[in-house]
Amino acid sequence: MKKRIVLALGGNALQKNGEATAEAQKKVAASVGKLIAELAPKYEIAVAHGNGPQVGNILIHEEAAATDKAPAMPLETAVAMSQGQIGYWLTQAINNAFLELHQTAKVATVVSQVVVDRDDPAFRNPTKPIGQFYTETEAKKLAHEKGWTVKEDAGRGWRRVVASPKPIDIVEKDAITEMIADGIIVITAGGGGIPVYRTKVLKHLKGIDAVIDKDFAAEKLAELIHADIFVSVTAVPNVYINYGLPHQEALHKIAAKEITNLIKYGYFKAGSMLPKVEAATAFARKGHTGIITDIDNLKEALAGHAGTIITA
Amino acid sequence: MKKRIVLALGGNALQKNGEATAEAQKKVAASVGKLIAELAPKYEIAVAHGNGPQVGNILIHEEAAATDKAPAMPLETAVAMSQGQIGYWLTQAINNAFLELHQTAKVATVVSQVVVDRDDPAFRNPTKPIGQFYTETEAKKLAHEKGWTVKEDAGRGWRRVVASPKPIDIVEKDAITEMIADGIIVITAGGGGIPVYRTKVLKHLKGIDAVIDKDFAAEKLAELIHADIFVSVTAVPNVYINYGLPHQEALHKIAAKEITNLIKYGYFKAGSMLPKVEAATAFARKGHTGIITDIDNLKEALAGHAGTIITA
Repeated sequence: MKKRIVLALGGNALQKNGEATAEAQKKVAASVGKLIAELAPKYEIAVAHGNGPQVGNILIHEEAAATDKAPAMPLETAVAMSQGQIGYWLTQAINNAFLELHQTAKVATVVSQVVVDRDDPAFRNPTKPIGQFYTETEAKKLAHEKGWTVKEDAGRGWRRVVASPKPIDIVEKDAITEMIADGIIVITAGGGGIPVYRTKVLKHLKGIDAVIDKDFAAEKLAELIHADIFVSVTAVPNVYINYGLPHQEALHKIAAKEITNLIKYGYFKAGSMLPKVEAATAFARKGHTGIITDIDNLKEALAGHAGTIITA
Repeated sequence: MKKRIVLALGGNALQKNGEATAEAQKKVAASVGKLIAELAPKYEIAVAHGNGPQVGNILIHEEAAATDKAPAMPLETAVAMSQGQIGYWLTQAINNAFLELHQTAKVATVVSQVVVDRDDPAFRNPTKPIGQFYTETEAKKLAHEKGWTVKEDAGRGWRRVVASPKPIDIVEKDAITEMIADGIIVITAGGGGIPVYRTKVLKHLKGIDAVIDKDFAAEKLAELIHADIFVSVTAVPNVYINYGLPHQEALHKIAAKEITNLIKYGYFKAGSMLPKVEAATAFARKGHTGIITDIDNLKEALAGHAGTIITA
């Protein structure tokens, strides 16, 4: 029996040195493809990924060049566009990596809607800046016209801010689970998923402009498809306490209860390592394994010999 | 045993009266969702769709607002973006249509690469105008810088033109076939698919800027997933000969051989009904059924009582 794993790839991971052309991002995707082709004989694999810089650029283009005939797409639809874009690059990279091993990949990107609660407190306090910078006057005009929340961003200008609600369900979970069971490598929950909520009476799905944390969405995916291991793939081999200080200390194997205390004591930075640690810990608490490591150490970490491994 | 069908939806179908906002297109998608929810008890369904106006708008935005930090995505990646966008709208519409029937849909959009031959003669004579209009000077500068072919477009200005090669394979065919067999409604081959070719030696997949006809791609999909019926869904209930003339005549049931003769005699307009008739006829010649009709007549046509039905 193959173990079932969910890999959560960082959104910045595809843009090395900020290089944002399709060609540059495809080159980085090739190394992800190689890794997944190597893991495939031993694991059933679902891949989730971030989309921060990609959806940012889509929104910048959509808003800067919008006309009546070619109106700007809203954030929720822009997330869907980024899932198509990044999913294509990753799928093609995995196809090609299998070919180099003289095998044929069975891999597919599934566009996915992630359900949030319309009453999530995050909607009362939007914090995630997205899209381009505006002058104060422009920003306030847009806020008035489009119902946006806008905020001044660290002296760099004004930007729209949106909520970052918690993921509570993935609409496509049954399809994804069957695909994984059929041996298909599935790329999904890209960018934390297209944010949708259910209307009160009919329970209809409706898109909503928000940004779902990709680690929380990937952890939800791991739970829903009954994965054995959740891996948050990041830029460093381990989680550290006192990171960057002379007495920094890498965490290796640690129990969920213990790392929960470190979270409480404020050892991990919000917007950086904290969501990864929270997601991996949440998955470990459900009786599974949560791992945080980088691409180079991923295989060894899955074997229990590298990375930060959080157990129940 | 449910019959397996492939529906090819027109790309303009989602933009009623040219309304191109996400909201307007989602409203039109709702009617497609209802139809598919009604068909689901009797058929296994794959849905392919066009993307002409949508990918056109994506390209216009990408190119008009491109910068070094936020470079324009190439056409092949823009097709992937349009697959995410339209696939999301259709998936959500199908989800909601099932909810109205107090059922849960199992539906997923699969981002899909369609393989073309790098030596397809179409690449020597690009004919499909895409993206924005330019002045002659701008167009010729871009042609020089980016290796584009540009042409004057009917007195309206200069545009880039790309090739429209024939689809020869769909990379994700095995995954799609297993999904359909699992009872999942699959939306795929959007916009004719992301155009890719195989490199000579390693057979690697590589994206290429081109536009694949969505009816030909959908017919290829129908063939690869062993569908029973291929339906090209268009704006009129039937195929006509002498369309628009006083003596126009609707075609009802017709043999592939007979309609092949009508094609030869030039009865159908290129860029309009011709590719639909060619695709449906090609599928019928393989021993199956090809149908051309509109949304209102689709159910009756599948039952053999409406539309133009082409048989082997």
